Amino acid sequence: MQILKDRIVSEGKIMPGNILNVSSFLNQQVDIELYNEIGKEFYRLFSDTPVTRILTIEASGIGIACITAQFFKVPVVFARKFRAKNLDDNLYVTSVTSYTHGIDYTITVPKTYLKNTDSVLLIDDFLANGCALEGLVQLVEIAGAHLAGAGAVIEKGFQSGGKRLREKNIRLESLAVIESMDPENGIIFK
Amino acid sequence: MQILKDRIVSEGKIMPGNILNVSSFLNQQVDIELYNEIGKEFYRLFSDTPVTRILTIEASGIGIACITAQFFKVPVVFARKFRAKNLDDNLYVTSVTSYTHGIDYTITVPKTYLKNTDSVLLIDDFLANGCALEGLVQLVEIAGAHLAGAGAVIEKGFQSGGKRLREKNIRLESLAVIESMDPENGIIFK
Repeated sequence: MQILKDRIVSEGKIMPGNILNVSSFLNQQVDIELYNEIGKEFYRLFSDTPVTRILTIEASGIGIACITAQFFKVPVVFARKFRAKNLDDNLYVTSVTSYTHGIDYTITVPKTYLKNTDSVLLIDDFLANGCALEGLVQLVEIAGAHLAGAGAVIEKGFQSGGKRLREKNIRLESLAVIESMDPENGIIFK
Repeated sequence: MQILKDRIVSEGKIMPGNILNVSSFLNQQVDIELYNEIGKEFYRLFSDTPVTRILTIEASGIGIACITAQFFKVPVVFARKFRAKNLDDNLYVTSVTSYTHGIDYTITVPKTYLKNTDSVLLIDDFLANGCALEGLVQLVEIAGAHLAGAGAVIEKGFQSGGKRLREKNIRLESLAVIESMDPENGIIFK
């Protein structure tokens, strides 16, 4: 997706620890017109497969998932990263390691929001080592639902997450795949 | 907003500790058509005032803020509840107490995403004791920006948050104001 790649090149900041900061338009400040184009593109890519629900994980996936859901006209469900007080006990639960924050956490989704009749599209902003998306895949599997596929806005192609998901025969569509990035040579896409 | 009130009555669950669980359509599973109506209504209510930016707080405010921003055609910024590794040091910072989780936390927003030339609309899903919105008000004040107003989807009118914000002459628009709720008499709106 060229307008996304252009934006990553012009505004992305390469930070220590292979972190790409795109918070000026993607995951802290949101360019709502770009989000709209992202949602449209996910819809185009997955329009040949039935989708009854979009599943994402808090926090930065939520906005992208909601905008994308407008095109699919399906509900969004977001997995929570901790068990909030105002949820029922009836949860699907799995464990995830955050590369960005260097911690393990539990993700949960109420059983009533993910049914074995669902065909689920996963949406997230970043795919790096893939643990967040793998956690969502596990929730879909535990629920006995069909996995329609996974959409990531930015994939770090030099990390293992995309490869592992594709090896599991999961249909993965990333709108920009970064082959390499460093302060000297900048960001190079696949 | 009648369709919202109807939905609260039909699906809201009153939980111990004055907690209203509306996660089936508002803040964990998202009815995207309802979100669209909510965004439209916030736009109608604040269309007479200039808005250059929508500010919300992670996590459940993000989706509503993004959908609302489509109508205003302005960027969304979300305050984070902890300082993530991939942010610069240049942050506005304030402290908030969560009623739902019974903890204090720090909220931050990068200085570059909130300018003193901005006219900021605050958006959140719930207004109870008002600490989250008050935290956002403080961030706007620290930034020297203009506060256009605050929009809450559901206000618990029997808690003090709305009163405190209105006493500060903040323009507050809540789409459904709950006067009382208990398992015996159900949910009564103002």
